[in-house]
Amino acid sequence: MKRIGMLTSGGDCQALNAAMRGVVKTLANADEEVEIYGFLDGYRGLIYGNFRMLSSSDFSGILTKGGTILGSSRTPFKLIREPDENGVDKVEAMKQNYHKLKLDCLVILGGNGTHKTANLLREEGLNVVTLPKTIDNDLWGTDMTFGFQSAVDIATECIDCIHTTASSHGRVFIVEVMGHKVGWLTLNAGMAGGADIILLPEIPYDINKVVEAIKKRTERGSRFTILAVAEGAISKEDAKLSKKEYKEKMKNNPYPSVSYEVAAKIQKLTGQEVRVTVPGHTQRGGSPCPYDRVFASRLGAEAGKLILKGEYGFMVGIKNREIVKVPLEDVAGKLKMVDPDATIVKEAKLLGISFGD
Amino acid sequence: MKRIGMLTSGGDCQALNAAMRGVVKTLANADEEVEIYGFLDGYRGLIYGNFRMLSSSDFSGILTKGGTILGSSRTPFKLIREPDENGVDKVEAMKQNYHKLKLDCLVILGGNGTHKTANLLREEGLNVVTLPKTIDNDLWGTDMTFGFQSAVDIATECIDCIHTTASSHGRVFIVEVMGHKVGWLTLNAGMAGGADIILLPEIPYDINKVVEAIKKRTERGSRFTILAVAEGAISKEDAKLSKKEYKEKMKNNPYPSVSYEVAAKIQKLTGQEVRVTVPGHTQRGGSPCPYDRVFASRLGAEAGKLILKGEYGFMVGIKNREIVKVPLEDVAGKLKMVDPDATIVKEAKLLGISFGD
Amino acid sequence: MKRIGMLTSGGDCQALNAAMRGVVKTLANADEEVEIYGFLDGYRGLIYGNFRMLSSSDFSGILTKGGTILGSSRTPFKLIREPDENGVDKVEAMKQNYHKLKLDCLVILGGNGTHKTANLLREEGLNVVTLPKTIDNDLWGTDMTFGFQSAVDIATECIDCIHTTASSHGRVFIVEVMGHKVGWLTLNAGMAGGADIILLPEIPYDINKVVEAIKKRTERGSRFTILAVAEGAISKEDAKLSKKEYKEKMKNNPYPSVSYEVAAKIQKLTGQEVRVTVPGHTQRGGSPCPYDRVFASRLGAEAGKLILKGEYGFMVGIKNREIVKVPLEDVAGKLKMVDPDATIVKEAKLLGISFGD
Amino acid sequence: MKRIGMLTSGGDCQALNAAMRGVVKTLANADEEVEIYGFLDGYRGLIYGNFRMLSSSDFSGILTKGGTILGSSRTPFKLIREPDENGVDKVEAMKQNYHKLKLDCLVILGGNGTHKTANLLREEGLNVVTLPKTIDNDLWGTDMTFGFQSAVDIATECIDCIHTTASSHGRVFIVEVMGHKVGWLTLNAGMAGGADIILLPEIPYDINKVVEAIKKRTERGSRFTILAVAEGAISKEDAKLSKKEYKEKMKNNPYPSVSYEVAAKIQKLTGQEVRVTVPGHTQRGGSPCPYDRVFASRLGAEAGKLILKGEYGFMVGIKNREIVKVPLEDVAGKLKMVDPDATIVKEAKLLGISFGD
Repeated sequence: MKRIGMLTSGGDCQALNAAMRGVVKTLANADEEVEIYGFLDGYRGLIYGNFRMLSSSDFSGILTKGGTILGSSRTPFKLIREPDENGVDKVEAMKQNYHKLKLDCLVILGGNGTHKTANLLREEGLNVVTLPKTIDNDLWGTDMTFGFQSAVDIATECIDCIHTTASSHGRVFIVEVMGHKVGWLTLNAGMAGGADIILLPEIPYDINKVVEAIKKRTERGSRFTILAVAEGAISKEDAKLSKKEYKEKMKNNPYPSVSYEVAAKIQKLTGQEVRVTVPGHTQRGGSPCPYDRVFASRLGAEAGKLILKGEYGFMVGIKNREIVKVPLEDVAGKLKMVDPDATIVKEAKLLGISFGD
Repeated sequence: MKRIGMLTSGGDCQALNAAMRGVVKTLANADEEVEIYGFLDGYRGLIYGNFRMLSSSDFSGILTKGGTILGSSRTPFKLIREPDENGVDKVEAMKQNYHKLKLDCLVILGGNGTHKTANLLREEGLNVVTLPKTIDNDLWGTDMTFGFQSAVDIATECIDCIHTTASSHGRVFIVEVMGHKVGWLTLNAGMAGGADIILLPEIPYDINKVVEAIKKRTERGSRFTILAVAEGAISKEDAKLSKKEYKEKMKNNPYPSVSYEVAAKIQKLTGQEVRVTVPGHTQRGGSPCPYDRVFASRLGAEAGKLILKGEYGFMVGIKNREIVKVPLEDVAGKLKMVDPDATIVKEAKLLGISFGD
Repeated sequence: MKRIGMLTSGGDCQALNAAMRGVVKTLANADEEVEIYGFLDGYRGLIYGNFRMLSSSDFSGILTKGGTILGSSRTPFKLIREPDENGVDKVEAMKQNYHKLKLDCLVILGGNGTHKTANLLREEGLNVVTLPKTIDNDLWGTDMTFGFQSAVDIATECIDCIHTTASSHGRVFIVEVMGHKVGWLTLNAGMAGGADIILLPEIPYDINKVVEAIKKRTERGSRFTILAVAEGAISKEDAKLSKKEYKEKMKNNPYPSVSYEVAAKIQKLTGQEVRVTVPGHTQRGGSPCPYDRVFASRLGAEAGKLILKGEYGFMVGIKNREIVKVPLEDVAGKLKMVDPDATIVKEAKLLGISFGD
Repeated sequence: MKRIGMLTSGGDCQALNAAMRGVVKTLANADEEVEIYGFLDGYRGLIYGNFRMLSSSDFSGILTKGGTILGSSRTPFKLIREPDENGVDKVEAMKQNYHKLKLDCLVILGGNGTHKTANLLREEGLNVVTLPKTIDNDLWGTDMTFGFQSAVDIATECIDCIHTTASSHGRVFIVEVMGHKVGWLTLNAGMAGGADIILLPEIPYDINKVVEAIKKRTERGSRFTILAVAEGAISKEDAKLSKKEYKEKMKNNPYPSVSYEVAAKIQKLTGQEVRVTVPGHTQRGGSPCPYDRVFASRLGAEAGKLILKGEYGFMVGIKNREIVKVPLEDVAGKLKMVDPDATIVKEAKLLGISFGD
């Protein structure tokens, strides 16, 4: 018999349920008997022993369901070593719960922060298998994370809607796209939505270049310009600041997010009306797209296989269209960013898209 | 032969093209010969004689297309009587262009402001037929405006997406819904999306009642609360202020919109994390929903019929499921608001929805 | 305390769950204590005493869910008076179970057949409140049924998809739309999808008129023609047959459905390639559209109110935008059909749509 | 100056316009002057000299539009060498038109048949660059074709809708998925939609195994079973027949398509009600999904680059996430099928999906 703990951590996204269903279906279809302990609200459930037993029927009908049936929370990695407000040592508590329940392994679904903690638990001797979940697609060691394509779909639909209204009115529109410190989501939604200008964290922008691109469009007779701006986009000047200097500068920043800052600058330099749309958390929600459902199910199946074979310490990912296992120590602490010289960026430029650089 | 001028004015919305297609198809299928002059960018096109001749083929394939093939602009009614920066008398210019082109009538698609101007042109002796376009559904004299149901669909989808992510995390979420000074859009999207609290301009809110509703949910074990907040929502205190006092107060308002203000208050009073989503102009965009396509086509067909019969001075609307013609003087200057005692509001309360009142 | 039985009967559709949630939320928010007995698979559950107790949490999160959490089945009304294969008298069994559980009333959601049985139970002395569910919109006594608008959306989307492929290829395309013996669904989806020809049960078609309409399009340079054909569409000759004659004729009918017959005739008379698409049961599935969610929730709330007041023997429907209660005896056994002279049909003709009549 | 001919051939699909837009935008953004000759209705336009000059504005706003602005037709490869009904030698006619217009190259978008003809034209000395278009994803030399993911989305949505209605009723449902002789589309839509049984052309089915899988589900308490059946699915017995024997057998086949045959067999062997849904050509229609838009735009950009460099005789495809050029002679005449032993098939089996083998 296998006793498996399972948890979802960090910002939720589409296809978390699909991935868990994949693991559990695979285990259920194997000969071995399996017990699934679902820890609630991410690592918090593991720390405080908050879980519920899950049967196959809990995973029936959830392939298409957004969110996570286990709940999630952000337990900041930076504080994982610090005791909580009651003096509880979180890492020790997790280890104790793991051993008390006699778990054979933990299945952990999450993004960057989650993987740092997962690797730490591995170093502490726990058996861990992880699955790469994030709409940001910034996890090292895998070409793709689930949630990403679904988020691209939603952000693109948003740009599509703006497109029809923009073409009636003749204005500048900014759509702020999620993605934290990386630009994958903005780059793909921007290209899919036919954005004219795309601003990414990896390619700091020069506002004069941005304005130039807008003016060029106006001169050519275009009645509107659409910008896809990553929530982590940054100007060339700000990119030169040290972390400390930047933090200091941000203290007096009157804008709720970078898009409003870009909007204010454009409005000032061109006199054109600029409208900002912030789809925000909708990008994490809704039913996973078919691509993500297949992808997450496949990852889940392979994670199930690893567990049946007793191979631990890996993230299951995809490389060149093959499902692969990647040692956790290779994943943790790294970020997969958009290379400013990547082929896809060059192709976007061929299509006439400006990156403001 | 009939010579028809056509224009779309005000904020654009879904099904404008469907409605115009309806008018033109009806005229084209009649025996009479017809010339269509499409004025560009709303009244601006009529003022400055900016138009293009339209043939049936211009209206082919646009049933499903968002935006307006004629472009739109907001010509503020308040300034319609004032000369422009070059001293041009706008009303006179419109009359002159109308007569110079020997138009038989104007087909004008728009919302409240548009109808005030349309009625003014009627008073000046022009033949006018109008169609009720607005996502706000606030036009007097018609049960429904086209664009409304499509906007409900988009705003609801937004709440749906928030629902999946909300249920994973356990927070308070606010979705800010359009609708100017009326609550139809928020009320319908809120009910369709299963919002727990709905704040409307017509029902000023008491923040303590809002917080109470949130706490009640938490006590009952609900892990999250979703608010649908109209962009025109207002607190009970602010509703008591005179227009001047309110304007004065807003000068120092640090919040980009009412949702951020409500969010800040809730965060302060409950300590709970609150997230704001602003779908904004996406609510005006995208393909019209089937309901709006049928509705706008029907209105267009009936407008075509009026023109063929030479009956002018009406808005074509719907009353108790019958397409009706409403005298323009009855429409202009009035606002159709949500009655706080309306059956639908009472039903929403039966379902457990709080209006913060 | 109130003891309520609840069941969903007949072909399922969207918003059944939304409607039940509306009833239960309203009852739960009232002061009175309530017990809900959910009978499984329609009347079958009531006949054989197959039910489960339902709590508020069963109705949480189902507003947006298609299908019915209670399951459904078609118990043909015609056989309701005949004993089943074990000699059980079905009506007696239902009465016994009703009384055994000491129910105060039954909430029954269904279409035409369902309402005949519901009225029969009322005549037998049971307290009944019903809700009008059907994608066909053919229930007497209400302007609208829930499920209808959602089905229109799906059928329209289907025609939209065909439109893009049709315009590339230049063929005749038929989309077969559900609706049993009435044409509401086909009429609305056809108008919303921009179909060129619409064939309804209420307006028997002359195949020569259909072919004429296609040829006229070809002459005008149109590269394709799209027909929305109701599954119950019928030719003028067949419409003249007696029921018996028609049945006899259908015995040798080689076509799986009417669309294939129409396609064969067109192909023969024009030589053009004709393609048939049958979206079938997809039209009953998926998440209810926002319109249906609001509508079903409102009906549910009003049903809840009736129950609290002890007013039984009614269907809750909508008339001229007001929620109304309609005596069951007025509903049962009647069919709401499309009037061939209805305004909407005339408007469709103004738009150039042929009905093949 | 470059003079470019462009045509789309074969069954249309999503993102054809996006791909052409990619080519033209790239050429337009280069220094060189370019003339684009758009041949209408596939090779037919090239044969009969039917074309129109295209400017950049023709490609504006078509990123999201389904179908092809050039029209398409199926010119069967097998007959390409035979003269038409007027004795015209098609290949010679194409060569003559190519040379008469002094074209520098042809950009050809299409699937398998299209590529055979494209390669033939290359052998005849014409400069050709091709783009891999097909919802079947069966083109050799590229991991992916555009149109595929959009078709997966539509087929999956169809299964999703069936899912909600299936779970209410307790029946067997078959969704027939396109894909010609290969199973990519069915495999992916089946996995994404949570189908219980998937029948592919590459894995001939044993109807007894299919029935066994259905019975096993019923025994476990599942109330319904959903099959995703490829239009090219074949039984084990039929797969053993020679092409001639199979043709002979099909002559007396009473079923409009394979799904109806499978349905009849299941109904006979289990007694369960089986319902068939045929989404058909809808799978080719609608707006391309964001994935396809980005992918087709990238391919278009790279095709533009090849043209600017004067590199001809290639299909632009994707291999291991890199855009590549593949010699046309390597592509033509081959089929990329699902390997019955592929990892993804094994993973599907781990998830409990039966392939009836």
